[in-house]
Amino acid sequence: MRPINLYLPESIAEATGARRALVGSAENITGLHLGKVALITGGSAGIGGALARLLALAGARVMMVARRESELEAARARIVGELEDIGFAGVERRVRILGGIDVANLDSLRLAVDETVRAFGRIDYLINNAGVSGAEEMAVDMNVDAWRHTQYANLISNYALMHMVVPMMKAQGSGYILNVSSYFGGEKFLAVSYPNRTDYAVSKAGQRAMVESMARHLGPEIQINAIAPGPVDGDRLAGLGGKPGLFERRGRLILENKRLNAVHAAVVKAVRRGEPVAGILGRLARNDTVQLSHDKSVPAELRELALACAREGDETCSWDRFLLTPPLAAKLTGRLKLGGWLIGTDWAARAETEWLLRVPPDDQPWLPVAQIAREAAKVRAGVLSQLHLGKMPTETEVAQATVFFLADRAVSGETFMPSGGLNVERSTTERELFGSPKAERLEQMAGKTVWLIGEHLTDYVAAAADALLGCGVANVVLMARTAQGAAAISSAVGDGGGRVQTLVIGEAIEDTLDEALVRWGPPTTIVSTPLAPLPDRLFEGSDSLDGAGFAEVVDTNLTHHFRVARKASLFDHCQVVLVSPDVPMGQGGGPAFALANFVKTTLHAFTATIAVENERLVHDVPVNQINLTRRVRSEEPRGDAEHAEEVRRFARAVLLAGAPLPDAEDSRYRARVYRGMSITV
Amino acid sequence: MRPINLYLPESIAEATGARRALVGSAENITGLHLGKVALITGGSAGIGGALARLLALAGARVMMVARRESELEAARARIVGELEDIGFAGVERRVRILGGIDVANLDSLRLAVDETVRAFGRIDYLINNAGVSGAEEMAVDMNVDAWRHTQYANLISNYALMHMVVPMMKAQGSGYILNVSSYFGGEKFLAVSYPNRTDYAVSKAGQRAMVESMARHLGPEIQINAIAPGPVDGDRLAGLGGKPGLFERRGRLILENKRLNAVHAAVVKAVRRGEPVAGILGRLARNDTVQLSHDKSVPAELRELALACAREGDETCSWDRFLLTPPLAAKLTGRLKLGGWLIGTDWAARAETEWLLRVPPDDQPWLPVAQIAREAAKVRAGVLSQLHLGKMPTETEVAQATVFFLADRAVSGETFMPSGGLNVERSTTERELFGSPKAERLEQMAGKTVWLIGEHLTDYVAAAADALLGCGVANVVLMARTAQGAAAISSAVGDGGGRVQTLVIGEAIEDTLDEALVRWGPPTTIVSTPLAPLPDRLFEGSDSLDGAGFAEVVDTNLTHHFRVARKASLFDHCQVVLVSPDVPMGQGGGPAFALANFVKTTLHAFTATIAVENERLVHDVPVNQINLTRRVRSEEPRGDAEHAEEVRRFARAVLLAGAPLPDAEDSRYRARVYRGMSITV
Repeated sequence: MRPINLYLPESIAEATGARRALVGSAENITGLHLGKVALITGGSAGIGGALARLLALAGARVMMVARRESELEAARARIVGELEDIGFAGVERRVRILGGIDVANLDSLRLAVDETVRAFGRIDYLINNAGVSGAEEMAVDMNVDAWRHTQYANLISNYALMHMVVPMMKAQGSGYILNVSSYFGGEKFLAVSYPNRTDYAVSKAGQRAMVESMARHLGPEIQINAIAPGPVDGDRLAGLGGKPGLFERRGRLILENKRLNAVHAAVVKAVRRGEPVAGILGRLARNDTVQLSHDKSVPAELRELALACAREGDETCSWDRFLLTPPLAAKLTGRLKLGGWLIGTDWAARAETEWLLRVPPDDQPWLPVAQIAREAAKVRAGVLSQLHLGKMPTETEVAQATVFFLADRAVSGETFMPSGGLNVERSTTERELFGSPKAERLEQMAGKTVWLIGEHLTDYVAAAADALLGCGVANVVLMARTAQGAAAISSAVGDGGGRVQTLVIGEAIEDTLDEALVRWGPPTTIVSTPLAPLPDRLFEGSDSLDGAGFAEVVDTNLTHHFRVARKASLFDHCQVVLVSPDVPMGQGGGPAFALANFVKTTLHAFTATIAVENERLVHDVPVNQINLTRRVRSEEPRGDAEHAEEVRRFARAVLLAGAPLPDAEDSRYRARVYRGMSITV
Repeated sequence: MRPINLYLPESIAEATGARRALVGSAENITGLHLGKVALITGGSAGIGGALARLLALAGARVMMVARRESELEAARARIVGELEDIGFAGVERRVRILGGIDVANLDSLRLAVDETVRAFGRIDYLINNAGVSGAEEMAVDMNVDAWRHTQYANLISNYALMHMVVPMMKAQGSGYILNVSSYFGGEKFLAVSYPNRTDYAVSKAGQRAMVESMARHLGPEIQINAIAPGPVDGDRLAGLGGKPGLFERRGRLILENKRLNAVHAAVVKAVRRGEPVAGILGRLARNDTVQLSHDKSVPAELRELALACAREGDETCSWDRFLLTPPLAAKLTGRLKLGGWLIGTDWAARAETEWLLRVPPDDQPWLPVAQIAREAAKVRAGVLSQLHLGKMPTETEVAQATVFFLADRAVSGETFMPSGGLNVERSTTERELFGSPKAERLEQMAGKTVWLIGEHLTDYVAAAADALLGCGVANVVLMARTAQGAAAISSAVGDGGGRVQTLVIGEAIEDTLDEALVRWGPPTTIVSTPLAPLPDRLFEGSDSLDGAGFAEVVDTNLTHHFRVARKASLFDHCQVVLVSPDVPMGQGGGPAFALANFVKTTLHAFTATIAVENERLVHDVPVNQINLTRRVRSEEPRGDAEHAEEVRRFARAVLLAGAPLPDAEDSRYRARVYRGMSITV
């Protein structure tokens, strides 16, 4: 018997839209996934579409689910046509679609699973591919709903689907869950910061962290892995349906943020000098660079900025004449309101309305087209220079590598990087506490106010309070979810000599922070801990943690910190410490332990990103993270003495990360060392 | 055309020795590597043999090279037979072998390349699979030749072959280099410690580091990646040719080392109390547990140990009666000699001779067989508990994943983990310097002696000397390769008030350290820097860095530190700091920069391993590492001021890592934080 190679007819390459036929490879996947049932979310385009095509070619039964029925139909028609041309029979039955599925909606996900089982009787591969790009703005400009939507669509959906299919896969004795993460979701033990995309980075890190921390709760029957594509030459990058592609969107964002941050900085600097904020905004509302640059009643910071902006334009745009657009103006007052800079002014109420008296014309772009292109080209060149092979893989190449990866029966808990060798800056998640803060840093805290946010982590928060009192702070403001929580922490704190204050957090954490701001002024340090313990449940048992329960974990442990840090990043002279959850002694190794490690890793994507973003803001607030759970169960405290030691270490870490930054001795390294770090105690 | 699946006849599974036929997968690789030429080192067994088989099945032309011709012939016969049975023609021509190839020998490697090209006209895939297990003993017991042999066989061979094939692959416009590393080679930015296998861990980390640091010097034509298998159920683990398998070897080693370390500790403790070492060894030579435990003239430490040992045995063995075997006795006196404990005694000369007066009988095992089995089972259970799927992959599974991985044209610079999800302890290579050493640690250095080893890194070494003089040390001993080097450093040091001494390193670094030991007593801190700069060459140009040149880099930057640390680990109250090479300003991004990152990563495997080993020794010497080169070119100093800042940071890091350990406040974490760390300054 001679070896048999099935060469695709040349025309197939064009018929399928693939850049080039993978001659020498594609023919080899025939039968590789014979009879397997794959549920692919977001299967109509991009990597998901390419995966659906190759899995079908490899003999699998494929259910593609997405929002738009029409796109799914087109994708299915292409695949069916191609396979029938090659000579496959029964393709119509093997390749199915289900439209109207929104991964941000848990009911919708239930339907996707039910329909797949109804069609094929089982699910062997769950491919969590669908996702959204996210808000594409800085954390300080992002609203909580936008953040939550990204987490639902990209992250909670993965868990919810997993939770639905796990019992079936366990019963089958096999199953494979593949999360399509991103290079910007980081790597094992390492976070990557992705400015302007913090919601996205967190969701992608979460997809990866889920794989790493939950694999042992799914084995031996079920494999769970992730792929983390870097930049991929295809639909997503080029822009879907006529919309601008990723690089162009980044280019726009860079220019818009540069302008917004400059205006924001000018306003804040003027207010710091004593100019009333209402007056500044009143003048800014005129939104005329020429007028602003000439009016002596306008604060100098704004005058200079207006002059610089007036020189920046060209004929194709209006951004030399108009300082802001209505959306940027709304972001500006949104920032000022969130940061407490509008308290006591009538702007506090009108911050979200359109307040510009003059707006750029509709018939001309505001942003200079040539500059967008230049910025986009820079981003693209930067990305390419980071790829060892100097080129991006295509969607088909990524899909092919993935189809091979899926054939491997020995790997679980791993993330595969089909784009390979990107050289981006990374930050270690498992940093150890060592060294002590210099005395002069601690001395700077004397007479200042610090805020501690917590509820059940009584001894940790109390120890931090004691340590801060020891530095001579004027006020320790304890904010707890309940009055009982506040009382418990308060009574565990040593003698504060009347310096310990308490507040009960109401419906919105932001209101409580505003109240503290009004009563005790801006804090030098904020320590944010989660307000509820982790559940000790995952996939097993009648009270297993379902999608809604997981959404709660995300809200308590990620969204909560986002909300605190987003606001605090708009304060002057503030350092923020975010704390990942603890697992009570004895629970090590169980579901709560896996969740704690999931949170720690995922949160670091936020910490690393906002730390970089904040360097572009006038307030320059460092954000760092302290982790209360170690990666390995055997390293967790085994008794009261060791727990007490951990509490002491936590308090020391709070001082290290929470005291004002050291002077510029190590200037170039300061940011790297003291910002966005993640210390495990 | 219907899909065509080539099912293998059932009998093939047995015929090939594979555990099970990979029905549903194996038939799919037909043609996947059609026409490609693969050179596989160590292709006769294990993963290499499985790879050769699958690559041949996938249509490649395969050259298997190894030492033993007979084994190669058997492997080839199996593959040829299998492929002919399936129906392939011309297999005899496609699958070739070359015996007598020793990867530890550069000439032998040249022959392998030449013969492959002669047979097939080109090389598409270089698969660096051959390797040795290494010395399998603690670093302090390992001799320099054994260490070097492991580096030649496992690491230098990879580079040497790469250097030979790169011009050909560049000319072809494509090529793929695959290094078969190991899970114990660590992961990107992370080192894994592998006690008793430091030579092996370093060589495996080097294979991986090479991929990460050199990929961009090989692209866009050439891909270079690694696979890092974890435990694999196959030849290597089970033991080749009737020899004991890995777990049994580990079990033996654990028992032997426990005994050796206990005797060693007893001797050292007695000497510390003032007992003359010669007398102790004289009594120990009797090697009779009963006698030793009853003789009041024997130091108490040894008496107690002998008593405990006498109770440990069973009828199957003699280790309750004999404290040591001749090999362990030689290791014991080897340690004492290396650590300077025999200076001035007549034992210094006879340390390596057989000195036991009484040795265990030949007709009975010394080690208790049941205990070996118990230890081996513990090791095996520990490994299995770390695998998410609770099972080890087979060699065929690993090979299949690799054959798929090799088909991917987009990945370079990456390490693929075909065993997936091992949960072992890792240590971060890119740790940042932060915090300062506590004053009480620095005060402990007053009046002590410190050793600084260096040559060309004048300003770094001088700054460290100044910082140490500032702590009030009694002597700074500068050891340089040349008298000029010593003079340059010495004159760059500030006023030492006669406290700065110099020594010129002769042929062997060990002799110089012994001289310093005699003249100024044991040091509290040793800072070891490489004695020559890195070459700024790799694969390109007429003066490219060949295998011999690379061997020199390994010797200067890895073997050198091994020699210093091995000896220093046998001193009392000593801290060791190993320094990875610097790249002069302006060279960033070039070959030297890649080499510096290669060294830094590879050295950390040593640092992390010896740090753990040393905790099992009576001297308990912490070993840490400082890196002078950052991972990204843009972070390197860009001018004199930034260089000066880096030098200051280096001196601070030397104090942090070099001062005596802090007290046990953070007891359980002390080892994690202060040992085996790798700080980049």
